[in-house]
Amino acid sequence: MIVSLLTDYGHEDEFVGVCHAVIRGIAPDVPIVDLTHGIARYGVREGAIVLRNSLPYVPVGVHVAIVDPQVGTERRGVAVRTDDGRALVGPDNGLLSLAWEACGGVIEAVDISRSPHRLEPVSATFHGRDLFAPVAAHLAAGAELADAGQHVEPDELQLLTLPEPRVGEGEVHAHVLLVDRFGNASLDVAHADLAGSGLALGRPVEIEVGGERFTAVFVQTFADVRPGEVILYEDSYRMLAIAVNRGDAVSALKLAPDATVVLRPR
Amino acid sequence: MIVSLLTDYGHEDEFVGVCHAVIRGIAPDVPIVDLTHGIARYGVREGAIVLRNSLPYVPVGVHVAIVDPQVGTERRGVAVRTDDGRALVGPDNGLLSLAWEACGGVIEAVDISRSPHRLEPVSATFHGRDLFAPVAAHLAAGAELADAGQHVEPDELQLLTLPEPRVGEGEVHAHVLLVDRFGNASLDVAHADLAGSGLALGRPVEIEVGGERFTAVFVQTFADVRPGEVILYEDSYRMLAIAVNRGDAVSALKLAPDATVVLRPR
Amino acid sequence: MIVSLLTDYGHEDEFVGVCHAVIRGIAPDVPIVDLTHGIARYGVREGAIVLRNSLPYVPVGVHVAIVDPQVGTERRGVAVRTDDGRALVGPDNGLLSLAWEACGGVIEAVDISRSPHRLEPVSATFHGRDLFAPVAAHLAAGAELADAGQHVEPDELQLLTLPEPRVGEGEVHAHVLLVDRFGNASLDVAHADLAGSGLALGRPVEIEVGGERFTAVFVQTFADVRPGEVILYEDSYRMLAIAVNRGDAVSALKLAPDATVVLRPR
Repeated sequence: MIVSLLTDYGHEDEFVGVCHAVIRGIAPDVPIVDLTHGIARYGVREGAIVLRNSLPYVPVGVHVAIVDPQVGTERRGVAVRTDDGRALVGPDNGLLSLAWEACGGVIEAVDISRSPHRLEPVSATFHGRDLFAPVAAHLAAGAELADAGQHVEPDELQLLTLPEPRVGEGEVHAHVLLVDRFGNASLDVAHADLAGSGLALGRPVEIEVGGERFTAVFVQTFADVRPGEVILYEDSYRMLAIAVNRGDAVSALKLAPDATVVLRPR
Repeated sequence: MIVSLLTDYGHEDEFVGVCHAVIRGIAPDVPIVDLTHGIARYGVREGAIVLRNSLPYVPVGVHVAIVDPQVGTERRGVAVRTDDGRALVGPDNGLLSLAWEACGGVIEAVDISRSPHRLEPVSATFHGRDLFAPVAAHLAAGAELADAGQHVEPDELQLLTLPEPRVGEGEVHAHVLLVDRFGNASLDVAHADLAGSGLALGRPVEIEVGGERFTAVFVQTFADVRPGEVILYEDSYRMLAIAVNRGDAVSALKLAPDATVVLRPR
Repeated sequence: MIVSLLTDYGHEDEFVGVCHAVIRGIAPDVPIVDLTHGIARYGVREGAIVLRNSLPYVPVGVHVAIVDPQVGTERRGVAVRTDDGRALVGPDNGLLSLAWEACGGVIEAVDISRSPHRLEPVSATFHGRDLFAPVAAHLAAGAELADAGQHVEPDELQLLTLPEPRVGEGEVHAHVLLVDRFGNASLDVAHADLAGSGLALGRPVEIEVGGERFTAVFVQTFADVRPGEVILYEDSYRMLAIAVNRGDAVSALKLAPDATVVLRPR
């Protein structure tokens, strides 16, 4: 069974490598997939969205996510089983919650803070190494979820809530969900949600961000416009997104995660 | 059979991780080698050169390369078989062409744009996930190249052409092929090409770049000179290269990919 | 048997990928753990400390480390067997020495500069590819250490020496060992060394760096203080460390590797 990892550890330090090493010591042959270690430091919301978006492409397995500003405090570490058979492992701070909602909900949950699989002594700052990696490795090697910690009622787990988009006649109020290294920004509205808004493929769009207005075209892909032009398009997770062909929309339009974006047909 | 990956996806986002996940879903045990994901965004030429340079060190397998400014347009995706038994998979924009030339040429090619192995619906912007990774995984798992897409005549494939260096008496006109993160710059002239130029190991060299002239020494390795000195040396791919010992030649000499460099014995 | 890698190669270029490829060509199924490739360029001391810190978490195997300012000169490449059964492979410049001291010392050593496992011709600048990776892969695949090179007396190997901390009454003179990407700085004093110093968990501490004095609290973890406050804490390797909650202590206190830090109870 596969283990996937998603963290804010970055690649400059040995944090990711040591987690791999711990997993290899317990489950030498399990495939490990590094979904990303580039989540912004303390970006719980970003991590939650990226995990939710990615999991449909990941084989069913044990999925660790670590973005953990409260590490070392009383916040719980948890492992949960989802309705579609996945195990999710990480801090109980909402990071896992968008993913488990998309996976049919939680059918079983345990508090792993004092898991028998933990590496003693558990440090106050590196639960990836001492808690989450060893628990995940044991689960991937066949251990039972119920044996990894203390039972928790699923409805006691922390949830993350995102702002809701609003689609009106001639106006869509959306929010920036994610920005990527290419300077593209994903919104929280899907193409399928646009009925009645007046926005249509091939048509010009006005994009308002922080009081400033930009003109864009709603197209299939970057190469449909000239370099430097702003586009609205459906990204690879089927959400509307804003980009600049061969440019950086995040800088050009001053887009930041959670920013409100108003879209109007022109 | 191994799968190798070379892209401009970087490590900040989940693009590479999702491609790994897709491969693992199809070919759980195939070894995956990440050659690099640090190709400059849209650096087709850089990607083509790095792929050509690296492949001699990679076991025969399925080699994916993705640097794809035209993703989502009518440009083809292709999989080709080389004379030495490798399968190369990527966009048909020249990116693969230097590698296949170095591997004995193309003996079979298919257009995979509508491959039976693709993930439907294929997004307009993430063919790594929806097209190249699944096709590569199926090939690594034993699928036939001919079954991965529609036959294409090898001579219809896109080629990349590089400028030619010119070795004269007392003067070599070369170009910067690649720069690395250490600030070293590889040229398109091999040591073996220098006969008659007057350049010789152990001797001083004048390096002219953009009208400016620098003095260097032609040596075996960095440690042959004092920190801060400019050297001409044979790099690990047997090409001439320019470096500054413990410094950054790319900044110091204002070297950029494709820049013309004139070398003269002093 | 596992192969672990620790280098200063970074992730922008293909250096790491080519080393993986070489290992895969020799030992197709051996697990590879990338401990880190983010050691500062030429950071022999940093690499040595990170290797020593990480190895207790890595299964016994073949452990390659490459930070190699003298590559291409007469400095030896070595492979050593430690008392606890590990093989360490890398340049003989002290990089491996802190690790082998922590692993019970060297019981066998060979000079691999002309190893039968090397890739000919060995380049002057990329011994990772041509020497260290192939030697490590052959060792992981079962080759004998004695067959990897020429016998060397263990006491002829290069050692690295670190400054010694000094714990006095009411004053601890320590040094910065490491800084991480989060801006935390590890010192060379363990919590267990503090007896008699007057420093105690829960108490305020004065931290003097380069003549400037800062006030901190000695706590368990970041979340014990408000954002922006300076803390002294025990890091995940059980060493004292300095951090700023949700901030960057390295910038705020101008901490650099090897800097002297004086700690006094307040």
